Amino acid sequence: MAKRTRPTLAEIREAHARIRPHIHCTPVVTCETLDRMTGCELHFKCENLQKAGAFKSRGACNAVLCLSDAEAAHGVVTHSSGNHAAALARAARIRGIEAHIVMPSNSPDVKVEAVRGYGGRIIFCEPNQPAREATASRVQLETGATMIHPYDDVRIIAGQGTAVIELLEDVPSLDAVMTPVGGGGLLSGTLIAGKGINPALRIVAAEPANADDSFQGWKRGQYVPSESPDTIADGLKTGLGKLTLPIIHELVDDILLAKENAIREALLLILERAKLVIEPSSAVPLAALLTNEHGLAGQRIGIILSGGNIDLRNFRFA
Amino acid sequence: MAKRTRPTLAEIREAHARIRPHIHCTPVVTCETLDRMTGCELHFKCENLQKAGAFKSRGACNAVLCLSDAEAAHGVVTHSSGNHAAALARAARIRGIEAHIVMPSNSPDVKVEAVRGYGGRIIFCEPNQPAREATASRVQLETGATMIHPYDDVRIIAGQGTAVIELLEDVPSLDAVMTPVGGGGLLSGTLIAGKGINPALRIVAAEPANADDSFQGWKRGQYVPSESPDTIADGLKTGLGKLTLPIIHELVDDILLAKENAIREALLLILERAKLVIEPSSAVPLAALLTNEHGLAGQRIGIILSGGNIDLRNFRFA
Repeated sequence: MAKRTRPTLAEIREAHARIRPHIHCTPVVTCETLDRMTGCELHFKCENLQKAGAFKSRGACNAVLCLSDAEAAHGVVTHSSGNHAAALARAARIRGIEAHIVMPSNSPDVKVEAVRGYGGRIIFCEPNQPAREATASRVQLETGATMIHPYDDVRIIAGQGTAVIELLEDVPSLDAVMTPVGGGGLLSGTLIAGKGINPALRIVAAEPANADDSFQGWKRGQYVPSESPDTIADGLKTGLGKLTLPIIHELVDDILLAKENAIREALLLILERAKLVIEPSSAVPLAALLTNEHGLAGQRIGIILSGGNIDLRNFRFA
Repeated sequence: MAKRTRPTLAEIREAHARIRPHIHCTPVVTCETLDRMTGCELHFKCENLQKAGAFKSRGACNAVLCLSDAEAAHGVVTHSSGNHAAALARAARIRGIEAHIVMPSNSPDVKVEAVRGYGGRIIFCEPNQPAREATASRVQLETGATMIHPYDDVRIIAGQGTAVIELLEDVPSLDAVMTPVGGGGLLSGTLIAGKGINPALRIVAAEPANADDSFQGWKRGQYVPSESPDTIADGLKTGLGKLTLPIIHELVDDILLAKENAIREALLLILERAKLVIEPSSAVPLAALLTNEHGLAGQRIGIILSGGNIDLRNFRFA
């Protein structure tokens, strides 16, 4: 499977069966006020309540459980300062193998503690992309560990695609599904699984206007890199990968943009009205719905709330 | 039913069938970190995700749907500045009748807006208990509306008891259930339904140490009024009622106290770790578990998160 370029719906279903004992089948929540404000019927798939606080646990579990025993014996390695790092450390602990996590030396304490809490071995590096990649390669050479990329990996994409399977089991009559897009793992898995189950399902991505590389690339039919994006949605700063870009360009129905103020307001609305703690990335689809001509009025829309890892004590509420 | 002193389990099941189309069957959420911190296996019943943001929607719906058509034609009345007011306004709107809500003139805007949003007719009064009761009585005389007390009402107690029915359907093997206690409606309903379903189920209440009237009264076997309590858990300032006190004194297994600092810390833990927005009252059971000798170590415990109506923009996080 590892050398293929995209998973099939059947493989996403296999991934679901594989990871099910180790993840939450997260609840789907509705909110009358947000329905009224958007003029849609919204169904929030609560991956903020997922293990390790994000959908990333799905892909990481699937990737680690797909390893042969011989591969697994050498552990796994990745470079990430975000949710993938904690999710991979947790997945490795489930399998009883080592996770080597390369993190920038300026990573927030809370993220370092999360990885450590799941038993990950942390290797700090200079806080830039070349140092991250070089350090991860060195660790890979030294240990023989398998590199698990946060999104550009067929096993990861398959795992992330399991969320929409559960969502459609809970609410089969959805007209559309929205996800945020950063590296594109969640969106790619959602596209393959969602349209595989129901070809008429519209799948709409949402992206910060300040990090609109996916939108620009999709409009032009080419790769556009993500260059020094400045957005509160820290999980969405990454650009698309070699595997995720073609899936998205082929299958996505629309990509909507959201400005920073709208993302902030949507975050507060979900906290205050839906009573769910989410990270800023998860607020982008609602922000986009509230501020765009989207052609989804009156429709039944599933929104995947991607994660809940936010530093509330330092969040500027007022 | 209205003149009886407590509902039976069968009546609580009838209430559940009656209100089910109008309320959420709220999800049950777990959190590894909080399990580790308490040494228990915790199952959070998310009434913070309930309609109108609190379990109060259960009792209010049941009470309003129990009215005869002749009674209903004159509407309902209550005095409350809290979750019961919004829940009753919402329940009345479902039945298409008027809700007269007497609120103190100093009620926070957000609470007034909630009642108004559900179409309630608000009558302001001086911010003291005699004025509230006198105004409500006057409105009752003028309109013929039925008074729906926030907790000392058999229909309300029956409605609140439906939450533990759902909780035990989701997690039948619970050893214990915890609820906060203010006026005692939720606790009373939980006691009758929970012990009715499983007589071996331990049911433990939690109360702010700064508003410990229920605990003091239970210890002494008498009524102790709630006098000028000073607690962040604003929903728990009320004393027990004539109906709720005897149920609680007869059936409750323990009442644990929690200090203000512990309630605050538990609130932050549930926000940051369980990713759920709750109001301070809902944090009291976890706070009590974290700071008492409780004899519940290693047990499987359901905790009813009573509500999620908190003013986050003015909450002191740091």
